[in-house]
This record gives sequence, C-alpha cells and structure tokens, in this order.
Amino acid sequence: MKIDSVDFYYLSLPVVRDIGDGSQDALLVRVEAGGCAGWGECEASPLVSIASWNCPMSHSACKPISVSVQGQRLESVDDIRRINALVRAQSFDLLQADHTLSGIDIALWDLLGKKLGEPIWRLLGYERAFPKTAYASQLFGDDPQTTLRRAQQAVHAGFRAAKFGWGPYGHGTVELDADHVRAAREGLGAEAALLVDAGTVWGDDTGAAEKRLQALEECRALWLEEPFVSGALEAYRQLSKRSSKVKLAGGEGCHNFQQAKSMIDYAGLGYVQIDTGRIGGITTAKQIADYAGTKGVRFVNHTFTTHLALSASLQPYAGMETDDLCEYPFEPSALARDFTATKLQANADGQVRVPDQPGLGLEPDWPALKQYLVEVEIKVAGQVIFSSAHDLTQRRKVAKTQRD
Amino acid sequence: MKIDSVDFYYLSLPVVRDIGDGSQDALLVRVEAGGCAGWGECEASPLVSIASWNCPMSHSACKPISVSVQGQRLESVDDIRRINALVRAQSFDLLQADHTLSGIDIALWDLLGKKLGEPIWRLLGYERAFPKTAYASQLFGDDPQTTLRRAQQAVHAGFRAAKFGWGPYGHGTVELDADHVRAAREGLGAEAALLVDAGTVWGDDTGAAEKRLQALEECRALWLEEPFVSGALEAYRQLSKRSSKVKLAGGEGCHNFQQAKSMIDYAGLGYVQIDTGRIGGITTAKQIADYAGTKGVRFVNHTFTTHLALSASLQPYAGMETDDLCEYPFEPSALARDFTATKLQANADGQVRVPDQPGLGLEPDWPALKQYLVEVEIKVAGQVIFSSAHDLTQRRKVAKTQRD
Repeated sequence: MKIDSVDFYYLSLPVVRDIGDGSQDALLVRVEAGGCAGWGECEASPLVSIASWNCPMSHSACKPISVSVQGQRLESVDDIRRINALVRAQSFDLLQADHTLSGIDIALWDLLGKKLGEPIWRLLGYERAFPKTAYASQLFGDDPQTTLRRAQQAVHAGFRAAKFGWGPYGHGTVELDADHVRAAREGLGAEAALLVDAGTVWGDDTGAAEKRLQALEECRALWLEEPFVSGALEAYRQLSKRSSKVKLAGGEGCHNFQQAKSMIDYAGLGYVQIDTGRIGGITTAKQIADYAGTKGVRFVNHTFTTHLALSASLQPYAGMETDDLCEYPFEPSALARDFTATKLQANADGQVRVPDQPGLGLEPDWPALKQYLVEVEIKVAGQVIFSSAHDLTQRRKVAKTQRD
Repeated sequence: MKIDSVDFYYLSLPVVRDIGDGSQDALLVRVEAGGCAGWGECEASPLVSIASWNCPMSHSACKPISVSVQGQRLESVDDIRRINALVRAQSFDLLQADHTLSGIDIALWDLLGKKLGEPIWRLLGYERAFPKTAYASQLFGDDPQTTLRRAQQAVHAGFRAAKFGWGPYGHGTVELDADHVRAAREGLGAEAALLVDAGTVWGDDTGAAEKRLQALEECRALWLEEPFVSGALEAYRQLSKRSSKVKLAGGEGCHNFQQAKSMIDYAGLGYVQIDTGRIGGITTAKQIADYAGTKGVRFVNHTFTTHLALSASLQPYAGMETDDLCEYPFEPSALARDFTATKLQANADGQVRVPDQPGLGLEPDWPALKQYLVEVEIKVAGQVIFSSAHDLTQRRKVAKTQRD
C-alpha cells in the first residue's frame, strides 16, 4: 500500500493558561493508506508543526516534510524506518521537523499494526509486554500544603509512585523546596516512590541543584529530573558525581537519536526520559530504548498529555522488564481526558499495561474532540498551502491536488 | 527605548532548486525601537519561523516568541542578553524558536549599535577587529574536472583558502571522493588552504569517514567538516582520534549554547562552526566563541548566504586574533547578491574585515529586494495572526493591534 493522505487536526482548550500543563492543546495526525487510518500526536505548538508540513523548500536539506511522506510505500516496519530516515535527511535544517515527524511516525506504526493485526510492541520485536508501575505525574502545589494534599490524592487513587514538578520548585529558597519535597513524601507515605522534576529551572548551575540534594536524599526521592536544560551534559555529569542516592533523569527535550545518545553517554543519567511525540516517534524512541539498555540506563516514557500519546510512549520499551516505570498523566485537561474513549487504567497494583489490540489499541474519540478543533489556513504567495480538515472524511484538498 | 515592532520579510528566488544552496531564500527581520531600525536574518525555512512568532501559546514553556520581545526595554547589551534568555525560557518547547530568535537577536544588536554609534564587535567588548582569511565556500562539482575548475576560479578571484562540500562527495566510492579532493588541491595550487565539507553524509558511521582520511591528508586538507550529523559526539570523537593531521570541524547545526558546548567538550573538534542565524544570534555565538577560546578550539563562522549574515557572523569573534578564518559565500544566488548594496570585499591578501560602521555596518537593499518578497498570511480560528509587511513603512497590523 501507499500513503494516500496525511491530515493534521489542531485541538485546543478555549483558553490556554500560562502554566506548565502541556495537555492544553494537541496536534493530532491522521495517516491513511490502503483504506486504513493510523493516528499519532505531536508535541508541541500545533501551528508551527503544521507550517512545516507543506512549507516551500528552502534547499535540498530543508524541504517540507510532505515530500518525504506522501505517496511512500508502506508495507513493513522497514518502510516506516526508511520514511523516518528520509524525513531527517531531507529536512534536517528545518528545526521543527522532528516534532512534526513524531506524530507522523506514530500514525504510521498505528496504521501498520492495524493492517497486520498486531500491537505495535509486537511489530517492534517484543514477544510479550510487561506491566509498568504508573507514576502519577503532576505539578507541585503553590504551597507545601497543596503539594501534600496532591500526594495524598495520588495514593488514594491507587498509585504506588508519584512525581511532582514545576510550579514553585527551584524559584524560591532551598528551604521552601525542601518543604515541598517533605510534604510530598508525607502525603505519599513511606512506601510510594517519590520523583521530583525541576523543569530545567537551574539552567546549567550545578551549585544551585546540589543544594537541593540533601532534602531529596532525606525524603528518598528516586530521581531528580531535569535540574538543567536538555543537553547540558557537563552540568548533569558533575551533579551525577555528587549524588550517590538520588539518580538523575532527563532527556524529554531531545528531538533526535544523537541527542538522547549523548545524554546516555555523557550526562550520568540513571533514567532517560523519551517523549515519542518529540523524539521522532516510535521508531527513534525504540532505537534509544535499545541503546539505553546496553548502557545500563533505564528507559522511561515522557507523557503529560493524552492516552493516545501514553500508548505510543509505552510501545518502545513495552518488552523491557526491568524498565518498569511509566509516567502517567494524573490531572490531564478536559481536552486530554476527552481524547480517547478508551483509557489505559492502572490496575489494583498501580500498574498499567500497553494495549494488546492492533496498533496503538485506542482511537481518538471524534465526536468528543470536535468541539476543540481549531481552524488553520496558511497562504504563501497567494496560494493556500494548508487548510485544516474539519472531520474524518474531509482531506486537505491542496495536498490531494499536488499529489494528483 | 522600547521595542516598538518586529517585522518579518520572506524573500525567495522564483524557483528554489533541490541543491545544497541555502541562499535561495531568506527570512529578513526588522526590529524598530526609539525611531531606529535594526536588521537580522534567520536560517532556515522562512514560513515555519514566521509561524513561531505569533502562534497561540501551548503552555508556559511553549509561548510564541512575540511575547518575550514586543514592548521590551532596549537600552544596553544586557537588555539583549535578557531578551535572548527570556525567549529561551518561555519558548523552550517550541523547537523552531531558536532559529527565529537568531534573526531577532541580530537585529537587536544592529539596532543598539546604530543607536550608540558603535559597531557590534565593540559592544561585545573587543577593542579592535582583526582581519580574517576568507575561504571561498562552494559546492563540489558534479565531476572532478568541475571541482578543479571551481578551485582555479577561487584562486583567480584572489582567495587564499577554499572549501568544497556536498554535491557528490560521500555518495560514491572512496576513490571518486579522493579524485575530487585531489582535483580541488590541484586547482588551488600548493599554497591555498583546502577545506572539505562532507555535509553529514555518513550519519554516524566512523568507518566510512575514516576511509576518506588518507586522501585528505595526502592533499593537506586543513579540516574535514561535518562527516556526521550534528551532535553525533561519540562518532566525532572516535574519528578525531584516528585523524592526526586533518582537523574535524562541525557545529553549524547547533541551535543553542549547550549543543555547541558539548561539541567542544566531547567531539574532538579542531574548529567549531557557528551560524549566528541558527544558534540564537550574536548573543549566543559570542558566548560560544568565548568558551571555545578557553578550550583551545578555533571558532569560525558558518555563512552560506548574504553579506548581512556575513557581517553578523563575523562580529562574535572579530577581536580574536588567532581565530583567523572566515567562511565567505563564493557563489551566492541572485537574491543573496542583491541583499545588500555594500559588500564585504576581501582585500588583495584575501582577507575580509568586519565593518567599522555602527551596528552590522550594512543595510538591506530594499529596492533590489522587493522583487523577491513572498506574501504570507496565517489564520488561526478565523483570525489573521500574521500578514506579511510589504515595504519598510508598513508594519504588521495584527501585532500593533495586540500591543496597543
């Protein structure tokens, strides 16, 4: 079969707030081939990713993504890997391309899985999928009391692990940060795993990060995530030498294999966190999971949005038994909750399983999503190069015209 | 003074060809403050960078760039550094942001330089600017005879150094590549410096790159540039260990300080090549030039487009005497040639000097550029969020409305 069409759906809450909640909008991708449709989701900035799909070519290594995808053969997993590599080669000077590719790549895996009647993790070569301990991923409260209450809520909801991030952490005093971490531990009780996400707040200042280690150790935090901006390899490495008990986690900002590989090689990470919606999709994420395994670094998903993204992010390491944690969106927006009718629920042991159904194993809930659709039209030199599709049956006419 | 307006001008040849010539289109940025205008240029994909300027916010770390720039105070170099950092902090999940920021940052330096009556390199703290040996930067010919002829042309044009890249290099046999390199050396004669650019053709395959070292050594190539994709630190490092005479050069693909720092720290580079139009502008490029100096890695500009970009790319290392090479566009497109009336001509010794005039020291040649203007209009949810300015006096009306 050949790729017949690629459609982008920009979805958003009516009001997007200035908070660290990445589930307030979404870019949904639909790929159709051989009469079958696959779905994927891109992080982030839907409009900018949309612009990269059909923008005019700048030169041989800065082409619109469409030229590497439309009309391509899609019969096997090798075809997906070939298309992924082609996009990278033909668009490597187009910075946004990796994010856009991510949603397309996920949709290609979903489509092929449905066509072949297999879940994606099996197409990736895994014989079985292991359950992962879901950690409730949420923001720190504005004050320690709120953080404590959120931790209690996570435990009451059945989670055996919880992560707190962003909000005030790192913006005030060392002591206030310690109070938040202690509140989180108190709310979780002695047993649940505690993870802390600094949201790159210290730039590359190892000294500032080091001052937080004592409270994190005292509260038995499993990891400190993103103390520094993505790619600050030397700062990570220095901090990792000073932290014997608390592991470092990072990598969500990586947007290609090489960046994640360098984080694994040089940053002293205990955990590499990969967002399939940014890294280049399931193809690239699997490549990193394999590499991390050879280096003794644990792979874990980065997912803060929908259950479609959650399924996509679980596939690359579904068959890796020792990589047993899973980021689980705990307080998603209404948009993210409405995204799929089917949810990946954690079981009584707080574990989540990747679906056994073909492809991603869940579908966008179109009737529920329609209310979030945002129209986009882009004109270049008087020609419409992108006009948003409004429902499942209406394709982007321009692309069709170009292909015909 | 405060930043009153930021305008983007998408310029393009009527037909963009599928070749490695990045000068076929351009995104020109104009910033106005205090009755004065500054100019900058972004690499690459004008439409996608334009989309990042005023796109809807996705979340607190994925904001449109406009919110970090419009209305900001601009009195000193510290203000430019503050604005640069603000864009990174508020848009770090917006992948394209670094390219868009680059053009804005360059325009801010140009504007401040004009306002203070100083060339940018002096605002950067340099007391004097040293001449750089210009190397003629061009593509390999389709066959060795063409490469030889191009090398001869570069010498006849007065260049003491020339670089050949892309085209067939790395796509055929080791022997054909060697023939091209020998042809280049023959055409240049014994004296001129020879540089070779592999254009990332070997991905991260050190073995493939290593096979080319012998011919490069034999022909006394000063450097082998981008044998691998940007950020393939380990591949670079391994190759650097196997190459005693030919230095490695790379870094043009970096789009922030951390990426370039890691290339300097881990990739075994002899030369770090920074494109001010990609890295985040003159602010970030200067930071890298300073860091490279402490590590014994030579800084060199990456410029393949206009003389506006050339001036911008020379400023960050203008005062560094030992960093004495300069990439010089040898066969720019008609658009790039028409970009500025003033050109930075190499002198009889093949050396080029950064201008002594305030700011960048040259201006876009508006009457000549008008023919290349490409209209862009972007609508989101029925509202025009970007509509291209058509001349120097007409501002983007939407931005004005939002600001007022």
